[in-house]
Amino acid sequence: MDKLPKCGANYVPLTPITFLKRAAMVYSSRPSIIYRGVRFTWRQTYERCCRLASALRSLNVVKNDVVSVLAPNVPAIYEMHFAVPMAGAVLNTINTRLDAQNIATILKHSEAKVFFVDYQYVPLARDALRVLMANSQNSGRPEKLMPLVVVIDDVDQPTGTRLGALEYEQLVSQGNPGYVPAEITNEWDPISLNYTSGTTSEPKGVVYSHRGAYLSTLSLILGWEMKSEPVYLWSLPMFHCNGWTFTWGVAARGGTNVCIRNTTAVEIYDSIVSHNVTHMCCAPIVFNILLEAKSHERRQITTSVEILTGGAPPPAALLQKIENLGFHVVHAYGLTEATGPALVCEWQKRWNKLPVEDQARLKARQGISILTLADADVKDPETMESVSRDGKTMGEIVLRGSSIMKGYLKDEKATAKAFQNGWFFTGDVGVVHPDGYLEIKDRSKDVIISGGENISSVEVEAALYKHPLIVEAAVVAMPHPKWGESPCAFVTLRNAAAVEEAEIIQHCRRNLPRYMVPKKVAFIEELPKTSTGKIQKFQLRAIAKTFEISSENESCSANKSSSTTPQSSWEMPRHYQYQNQEQEQILALSRL
Amino acid sequence: MDKLPKCGANYVPLTPITFLKRAAMVYSSRPSIIYRGVRFTWRQTYERCCRLASALRSLNVVKNDVVSVLAPNVPAIYEMHFAVPMAGAVLNTINTRLDAQNIATILKHSEAKVFFVDYQYVPLARDALRVLMANSQNSGRPEKLMPLVVVIDDVDQPTGTRLGALEYEQLVSQGNPGYVPAEITNEWDPISLNYTSGTTSEPKGVVYSHRGAYLSTLSLILGWEMKSEPVYLWSLPMFHCNGWTFTWGVAARGGTNVCIRNTTAVEIYDSIVSHNVTHMCCAPIVFNILLEAKSHERRQITTSVEILTGGAPPPAALLQKIENLGFHVVHAYGLTEATGPALVCEWQKRWNKLPVEDQARLKARQGISILTLADADVKDPETMESVSRDGKTMGEIVLRGSSIMKGYLKDEKATAKAFQNGWFFTGDVGVVHPDGYLEIKDRSKDVIISGGENISSVEVEAALYKHPLIVEAAVVAMPHPKWGESPCAFVTLRNAAAVEEAEIIQHCRRNLPRYMVPKKVAFIEELPKTSTGKIQKFQLRAIAKTFEISSENESCSANKSSSTTPQSSWEMPRHYQYQNQEQEQILALSRL
Repeated sequence: MDKLPKCGANYVPLTPITFLKRAAMVYSSRPSIIYRGVRFTWRQTYERCCRLASALRSLNVVKNDVVSVLAPNVPAIYEMHFAVPMAGAVLNTINTRLDAQNIATILKHSEAKVFFVDYQYVPLARDALRVLMANSQNSGRPEKLMPLVVVIDDVDQPTGTRLGALEYEQLVSQGNPGYVPAEITNEWDPISLNYTSGTTSEPKGVVYSHRGAYLSTLSLILGWEMKSEPVYLWSLPMFHCNGWTFTWGVAARGGTNVCIRNTTAVEIYDSIVSHNVTHMCCAPIVFNILLEAKSHERRQITTSVEILTGGAPPPAALLQKIENLGFHVVHAYGLTEATGPALVCEWQKRWNKLPVEDQARLKARQGISILTLADADVKDPETMESVSRDGKTMGEIVLRGSSIMKGYLKDEKATAKAFQNGWFFTGDVGVVHPDGYLEIKDRSKDVIISGGENISSVEVEAALYKHPLIVEAAVVAMPHPKWGESPCAFVTLRNAAAVEEAEIIQHCRRNLPRYMVPKKVAFIEELPKTSTGKIQKFQLRAIAKTFEISSENESCSANKSSSTTPQSSWEMPRHYQYQNQEQEQILALSRL
Repeated sequence: MDKLPKCGANYVPLTPITFLKRAAMVYSSRPSIIYRGVRFTWRQTYERCCRLASALRSLNVVKNDVVSVLAPNVPAIYEMHFAVPMAGAVLNTINTRLDAQNIATILKHSEAKVFFVDYQYVPLARDALRVLMANSQNSGRPEKLMPLVVVIDDVDQPTGTRLGALEYEQLVSQGNPGYVPAEITNEWDPISLNYTSGTTSEPKGVVYSHRGAYLSTLSLILGWEMKSEPVYLWSLPMFHCNGWTFTWGVAARGGTNVCIRNTTAVEIYDSIVSHNVTHMCCAPIVFNILLEAKSHERRQITTSVEILTGGAPPPAALLQKIENLGFHVVHAYGLTEATGPALVCEWQKRWNKLPVEDQARLKARQGISILTLADADVKDPETMESVSRDGKTMGEIVLRGSSIMKGYLKDEKATAKAFQNGWFFTGDVGVVHPDGYLEIKDRSKDVIISGGENISSVEVEAALYKHPLIVEAAVVAMPHPKWGESPCAFVTLRNAAAVEEAEIIQHCRRNLPRYMVPKKVAFIEELPKTSTGKIQKFQLRAIAKTFEISSENESCSANKSSSTTPQSSWEMPRHYQYQNQEQEQILALSRL
């Protein structure tokens, strides 16, 4: 019976494209997309995707070509999640908060053949193309490297903005509605390419397969228990791991995509009430947007809205406030290489009986592996032994399964480093609790090893955040003549407040075991961050190395450079900051 | 990027075994199985499965060997759904309602290496083995064909019944708890073998792959919207398409399996109330068991119980009665070849506003394809064109996707016939409604073509069932000199009631279009049925062929043979009827 052959009837390669085809068949007249005054049904969305896919083919896009897009959460970027693979090509969504140099680097590295640009980002795209052109001319082969540009004008209120001859709606209208999508014959073929934001190094191009995207989509629907007909609000950028797969997932569930251009309190509250939103994803910073909204921006939420959040675990007090507004929060953990969330903190019914603080503590854990991940574990990376399930012993979080990326584009070295002994190494350090739930303690590079003890920088930072004058804190290792390493804290203060280093250290002594107390606290105007707002600890470590510590009295001679904001080549340039200051913060805390 | 290689970290073959491994990790101390006084946790279930798998290996069970089991819904048959594939072998569950001859045929055809038998079925198994032995001796190679027998004694209250030396709990206790499951290197490898009950022909051995079982399991959880931590009552036999995949699905969801030996009103009501059952599957006939229970057998149901039902669409009145008791019914359609349910009647929120009768009409439809099925359609089998979505035009229901069987064991001809033009042909005739929902009208062999019109025998039967004196009805084609074919009805009557053929025909005229009215109504003591209670229309057709019709007056000379119950070689012998008369009926209406 192992000889029975595969055929077209019993072996169909897994691809998220089937979710759209099915939605067009079985949810045909239900709303697929709502954006301002524009509404589509699933039949229309399928037809529009067929048209766009056929238009791409007529632009000579062929199998495995990369099609890039720079856009906020408008209908076009949603449609491209299907239309690009339906043309056999690979979708590359670009973070709209990058600068021209970084975008040029991505366009060059990915060899993008077509570059879709939302009208609002035309100036940024123009600059990126100029950089790309300059680089290309230097390398002597300009034509091959320059992508064809298509502007996505606003579908609701066209502005007429152009950058070259092509426009999105024009392509759609010229396309063939009866186009038969390119057949996916191998589910291992690439479907999308997402560049990491580079917390610890240069960005890398993460490649997903059709199979991985398909299985991750099912996992996330299951892990979040998303029922059919959800009304999904796009408060998470689709350029973020393909919207944690919900670009495909909403089609799988026959739901409605509520697209918004800006993640403001007004747009979120209005959308929730006008369209009866049931689900949204976001970083915890969006909780603040919702909580700090002025009364005229708010609307009364009458039915519960499910929120899936990632990144920094939401503090108990914040959780309680947001749930009082009518939201229900589920916490997840993931990374680009795992197609978004890899662990979800599945709620257990018996926890409902616990005090609210215990609930928050349980909810703040990263949780258990999503269903299509074959395995998630915490291991000693030297011996590959699993750590004890005691909630204390730290190890590296490792994952394996078909929802893990194919690898890094054109980077064999990084790919080989990520995949070892049959596991993907996340670079995150965590523990396993007796009930099997994982909790992250730190990035592996950020763990401080002091006198043989592992110190989680996250725990030290949590203690610092309890000080009323501290706005932001980051803790890294500094060299120590006796202990090898010891914790060094960088903090920014509220409104140029004045406070002594000794007072902060005293505060830490009250809140931490002695060995975890920072030996040095440096005040800094601004912490160095990546374009997605993640703190670049490698820069802080470089500064910490310049601090001198006397082993005797354990005091430290402060270095003046600690008050200087370091510059990063991958940092977001100020003139291209997203127009909305709140949107700016959305991703600050997210690992995803 | 299409060259990035697969490795152990990013490509793990899909298999339901991972659901158990994961449950043991993340749901370790939650209850997995409850059976009378016995309770296991997921960690224990995993350990027991490891032990059993290692014991099977020590019995020389190797990759692709078949392990058969004849048992009701006790813990052992649940565990075997994991332990047998963990040993690399293929699970063959046998319908407990077959006779010794049929069981022998299956054991021979499948070449079962080990045969597990619940203590209650030892007499039946002994007879089956005698038949097998006799057949083997005739063929001259007895040893190879005789399986090793293991008795499954009652785990709660052991009886001491044996058939040879081996016993299930003994094997488990001798097994190695640290056994590392056989690695599934190819997800296309077989995991289980289920014999069809043979409505229209001899039973066939349907082979599922690990991939198909895995994807079907996810689909069913999604289609039924089963949340985590379900408490699942085994009111559907696990030998029925592996319990419609919920054997594996309950592990995937970290739920609790409530096992029951008999499907009586008492056991069902008691289990629901004692264990807070949330989900159960069954044929609609179980509704009658629940509704007709005596008051001392009943218990008050306080929280809603989800029922997934298959087979004959539940009539509106029945639906309303069962939902009034505290059950919520979802209707599905499937067949062994599709790993159980292939269509689920997904409920749309807006239907809640409709009158109850309209709701029942919508709910009675078979619905839309499950998510992992790539396609479901209704096509003209000649032209392979899709029928109009008008709810009227009939065609054959065809399916394709990775949840369709690998094929029929040792039956190339039947496999080739089932798979044509890249589709699996279900043999069922249906229509597509304008909203994309499918509805079954008949088995393709049972459609009556009269004067160029297709007549659904199911519709004629539905009209007959409205007559107060008719207990059962079956309609087949009879030859007609003018119309080619015309409908012929076979009916059984309540308590030997007396009624004229003309009266029944008159009743049909009031309820059906003229061309659909049976030209002949034959009264019969009992309808010929398969072992699972499905009506064998091919036998009725043979009788109908003997009827003579005069084209002139359209009357028909009744043939005396119509009152004789025909015999089928595949019919259930009376002395092996399941001990419980109600259980007997459970599968009567199910197509699944």
